[in-house]
Amino acid sequence: MPAAGAPAAKAKYSLLDDYSEGAHPEVLAALLQSNGTQEVGYGRDTFSEEAKHHIRTHLGNQDVGVFFVPSGTSANAISIAACLRPHEAVVAASSGHIVTRETGAVEASGHKIINVVPENGKLTPATINKALDDNWHFPHMAKPRLVYISNATEIGTVYTKTELTAIKRLCEENGLLLFVDGARIGCALTSAKNDLTLNDILELTDIFWIGGTKNGALLGEAVVVKHPQLAEDFEFFVKQHGSLLAKGRIMGVQFAELFRENLYFDLARQANRAAEKLSQSIVGAGFALRAETETNQVFAVLPLDLVKTLQQHFSFYVWEKYDDEWAVIRLLTTWATDPEQLERFSSIVLHWTK
Amino acid sequence: MPAAGAPAAKAKYSLLDDYSEGAHPEVLAALLQSNGTQEVGYGRDTFSEEAKHHIRTHLGNQDVGVFFVPSGTSANAISIAACLRPHEAVVAASSGHIVTRETGAVEASGHKIINVVPENGKLTPATINKALDDNWHFPHMAKPRLVYISNATEIGTVYTKTELTAIKRLCEENGLLLFVDGARIGCALTSAKNDLTLNDILELTDIFWIGGTKNGALLGEAVVVKHPQLAEDFEFFVKQHGSLLAKGRIMGVQFAELFRENLYFDLARQANRAAEKLSQSIVGAGFALRAETETNQVFAVLPLDLVKTLQQHFSFYVWEKYDDEWAVIRLLTTWATDPEQLERFSSIVLHWTK
Amino acid sequence: MPAAGAPAAKAKYSLLDDYSEGAHPEVLAALLQSNGTQEVGYGRDTFSEEAKHHIRTHLGNQDVGVFFVPSGTSANAISIAACLRPHEAVVAASSGHIVTRETGAVEASGHKIINVVPENGKLTPATINKALDDNWHFPHMAKPRLVYISNATEIGTVYTKTELTAIKRLCEENGLLLFVDGARIGCALTSAKNDLTLNDILELTDIFWIGGTKNGALLGEAVVVKHPQLAEDFEFFVKQHGSLLAKGRIMGVQFAELFRENLYFDLARQANRAAEKLSQSIVGAGFALRAETETNQVFAVLPLDLVKTLQQHFSFYVWEKYDDEWAVIRLLTTWATDPEQLERFSSIVLHWTK
Amino acid sequence: MPAAGAPAAKAKYSLLDDYSEGAHPEVLAALLQSNGTQEVGYGRDTFSEEAKHHIRTHLGNQDVGVFFVPSGTSANAISIAACLRPHEAVVAASSGHIVTRETGAVEASGHKIINVVPENGKLTPATINKALDDNWHFPHMAKPRLVYISNATEIGTVYTKTELTAIKRLCEENGLLLFVDGARIGCALTSAKNDLTLNDILELTDIFWIGGTKNGALLGEAVVVKHPQLAEDFEFFVKQHGSLLAKGRIMGVQFAELFRENLYFDLARQANRAAEKLSQSIVGAGFALRAETETNQVFAVLPLDLVKTLQQHFSFYVWEKYDDEWAVIRLLTTWATDPEQLERFSSIVLHWTK
Repeated sequence: MPAAGAPAAKAKYSLLDDYSEGAHPEVLAALLQSNGTQEVGYGRDTFSEEAKHHIRTHLGNQDVGVFFVPSGTSANAISIAACLRPHEAVVAASSGHIVTRETGAVEASGHKIINVVPENGKLTPATINKALDDNWHFPHMAKPRLVYISNATEIGTVYTKTELTAIKRLCEENGLLLFVDGARIGCALTSAKNDLTLNDILELTDIFWIGGTKNGALLGEAVVVKHPQLAEDFEFFVKQHGSLLAKGRIMGVQFAELFRENLYFDLARQANRAAEKLSQSIVGAGFALRAETETNQVFAVLPLDLVKTLQQHFSFYVWEKYDDEWAVIRLLTTWATDPEQLERFSSIVLHWTK
Repeated sequence: MPAAGAPAAKAKYSLLDDYSEGAHPEVLAALLQSNGTQEVGYGRDTFSEEAKHHIRTHLGNQDVGVFFVPSGTSANAISIAACLRPHEAVVAASSGHIVTRETGAVEASGHKIINVVPENGKLTPATINKALDDNWHFPHMAKPRLVYISNATEIGTVYTKTELTAIKRLCEENGLLLFVDGARIGCALTSAKNDLTLNDILELTDIFWIGGTKNGALLGEAVVVKHPQLAEDFEFFVKQHGSLLAKGRIMGVQFAELFRENLYFDLARQANRAAEKLSQSIVGAGFALRAETETNQVFAVLPLDLVKTLQQHFSFYVWEKYDDEWAVIRLLTTWATDPEQLERFSSIVLHWTK
Repeated sequence: MPAAGAPAAKAKYSLLDDYSEGAHPEVLAALLQSNGTQEVGYGRDTFSEEAKHHIRTHLGNQDVGVFFVPSGTSANAISIAACLRPHEAVVAASSGHIVTRETGAVEASGHKIINVVPENGKLTPATINKALDDNWHFPHMAKPRLVYISNATEIGTVYTKTELTAIKRLCEENGLLLFVDGARIGCALTSAKNDLTLNDILELTDIFWIGGTKNGALLGEAVVVKHPQLAEDFEFFVKQHGSLLAKGRIMGVQFAELFRENLYFDLARQANRAAEKLSQSIVGAGFALRAETETNQVFAVLPLDLVKTLQQHFSFYVWEKYDDEWAVIRLLTTWATDPEQLERFSSIVLHWTK
Repeated sequence: MPAAGAPAAKAKYSLLDDYSEGAHPEVLAALLQSNGTQEVGYGRDTFSEEAKHHIRTHLGNQDVGVFFVPSGTSANAISIAACLRPHEAVVAASSGHIVTRETGAVEASGHKIINVVPENGKLTPATINKALDDNWHFPHMAKPRLVYISNATEIGTVYTKTELTAIKRLCEENGLLLFVDGARIGCALTSAKNDLTLNDILELTDIFWIGGTKNGALLGEAVVVKHPQLAEDFEFFVKQHGSLLAKGRIMGVQFAELFRENLYFDLARQANRAAEKLSQSIVGAGFALRAETETNQVFAVLPLDLVKTLQQHFSFYVWEKYDDEWAVIRLLTTWATDPEQLERFSSIVLHWTK
């Protein structure tokens, strides 16, 4: 057992990210219960098959490929490597996770990323078109071939059905594949602003993934591959990237639990509600949000003194300086966020006086 | 919870591999107990720090780098990518895991593997020297720079201190790094034939890893990096390869449990003893082993009819045909192997009549 | 012999680029004269040795590594691959040749390029610093390690000694290597605005190359590698990238001819003077340049009607629309540019009436 | 001009390789004559078009893609990179040029090479089948997808139509592409043992290249790509690998000259005849060849004393020790080989007494 008190040093409550805790208790219980059975290795186990079945049922399509990988960076790098030939490039927002937080993993597999300035965290047909217009000088330029978007985006905004449909149409007209990073797709699909279903995502994209790590699992993301030909060889890529776990069962067990009923979406909704409640209390205290809260990320504009006070009790990112007296802070909520801690946070904000 | 009976379809007892079950109960209990605490992400958590401290204590050196990654293939690919410049090659046995079972992951990161015919699963100074002699025509040939060995080897044999020392000397004389794949290093170091300590491994190599997946963990391998300069940037490689888990804590918790005391070695010893007992019963029944059992792999030469009978109750690999009437089968044991099942196996062998 | 008249279809005189013709006659004569002698292959020939000696003499340093490669893209890709470890990134202007015209060759060797908005085609300490500030989140971001600049730049501007010295200082303070793409280094060093010597370039950078293709040779660029350790293994990279020609002599012969005396610089000066004369005639006719002409590229702002007239006799790039009635055109000159054609061009401009 | 006498130090006549001299005089004359005309860059020039037309005429097919690249290593690396997805592997003889003499360029583009023991320098359906049988464990093994052979082989042997047809059939049955390294395809197709036409090569393979460097050109190889889809994007790969020369005309001019009539084959036949004559004189003097001479490589078994004597006048490779008193030497001939030097060589052999 861990030495008593080791983690006790962490006095502040964290609103830093959505992976500070372990797995949801039901997920952990399933791991515990299934632990002793013998299973075939490398993802051919009964739990993984069961999980795939449940995910396909939620997708409304029993034929698509579903593959479990241990991290978001591996989900992105593997998907992109599997889709592209060496001279093909990715179009992505300059704020995209593959651009800013994956240590050049896409480039390490040989592909250029063409950066697009995001609008509210998102790509649009117009900005994608601009990227195509700037990258036509063949064969001197890498060929744009895949559009990468995140839903929810890196700043918590979501794509509407109209927006995603427009991007998909542009992709089809230009021979581009559409790929969705779904690290926070649970929060996206349960957002008050959302009008997309999981089946819509499947219909409107070529490949996407459903993030487990940030929504109830210890680890694991489920990559959904629509085209049979791409799906056929996909497992080679998973293995080549070191992501085919010998005990693939541990991802299977977790995803089976999350998707047997609606646990996955319930947890995401819970995270969104916590963010919504936090947003309301901040606005109620007379402060502004930098942008409307769409999922589980809250961007609040607070006086620097208040930020310092909050930092004594909570950890969170100071996103950017707003001006000499105000700063933008980012707060993340999850299914595990303690309501009492949010009340404590709100109370400090409400009662703060300069 | 999993649908009742789902795994029940698996009637045969598996001696196929050493990753058929989940984690050791104490490891799982530690995951359960630590689950709710908040921790910093990406391996900077208190559990990972604790695990590193315990591993370093076992190594007798608190300064080496220790990094957790989710799979053996990622441990190998990352270590080799971190050690080599693009024109440098790996020397490995043609039976090496990186050659035969990793989907070209080393080549995918750009490096040639120079194959050496193994002797009893192992490399020797003479065979490595031959590889160097065949690869001197610079710059037309890639430059041999790193020697990859596995301990225990892919067929369960172990390196003695004399053997490893001789290889290390050759490496030093030729400017080569020495890297040990330790997927089964627990079984190697607790083998009756072993005279190496974990500290010896550290002294005699440049980089190696301690396998958790096959010895008590749900997942995870600990890469030990001796040179400070190499260790300094190692985490970039872990992240670039998609192996830096957001909830790095789950590997930390498990390795802390395995190395706080001697659980890691106790489990390996248990696996070896099961293999030893199984070997004795096979020999006791009048059959031969294809090679002496050194760790947790047993290679038995049995009549084809007996093999067929055993296959009705157990799953295992038929390694190769011996002649028209005999086959070599491979049996793997672990800490989780059920002694009763081994007795049942032995009983069938003992009472078999043509 | 070529079918008579085959190229005759090309009626327009080209000011499109600086590689429309073959080699300078003296260079070609040297190839002809040396053709029959027997030489050792792969760049170990006496001509390559002679060329290296002459280049080193011009550099004022007989110890640096000099390596011949067939193209600018190979010079850039090889140099960058040789300098960087897999997790290290390049900082470059978004207008840089490696960003816009090399089909993702740098990414194909695994490295991210961090784009910087150029100022007058150039990087500055301030813009490089900004790139460093935006890329510090390790190990989640690739590590900036090499600064790539072109001299002359892609739009024909040159770095002064003060500017290059400031960049070098910044690089040293931040552990960055400085690499100069010298596709047009001849024109840069013979520009009226230049105050750098070839030896200064060597002193102020870590690795750079001297372009032959655009300044008198049929093909070939000479990469100069300052650090002995980097130079030691550089040839492996040349070979691995398919750039070690069996008849390396053909690059040796040409560079020997270009650098035996000052032919290389004479040719570049001739190209610059042609551009200067063309610029003066355009300005003399009452039109503006978009920017001062510093080397062999002229950017003129001309009425659309005049552009159309000129296009009947000359080929050149219409760089960008200026407004509804004016366009910016780019004109390139070389040692081979026909003075009579320039006069014809100037005459059309001078006598144009709306 | 080169300093007089610089190359004079080379007193020995070289039979080391087939790239010791420059270009054939007619090829050089064409370069000289075409030098002054203006041409569009990057291979879109009229000479390259003309050369492609002539090559296609020789192939009996005007629709195939033809691409010029500067070296054999680039031809191999580019072709393989263009054909394969990241998880696909190459099957090649362990004596193949890509295995032994290209600094791991294939691995550097990410692909594993599965080595096959050659028979008389060649692959056979049986040995390829063995490689497939050893590499079926998917997705743990890279997927064999392309068979690489050289014709002539690295030891000068040639494939017959029966042999090549059998390999092609096997490839088709197993979904494998067939690729021929034609560095010495001229000598292969003019060998006395040959019964293949250039059109047969096209019919029986998917992609192959025609070597210019070793048969009359200063540099350059012509890659022939049969499948339209592969040809469509091939130029991206040429550019990305740094092999799209700005003055692509220089390869166009040379290949136009070599293939306008039959110069290419005349030169190859001349090289083969020189080798044949040399072989006859050696046998006539009472010595044995290690293998029948099929193209422009002669392997002679000579007494060590005679070898030493010959080394005073000629340079050549001592291929291997035969026994304590004899060695195997390799002699290469080309279109440029001086008949008088061959007579001198033969005379020494004939008159040698122990």
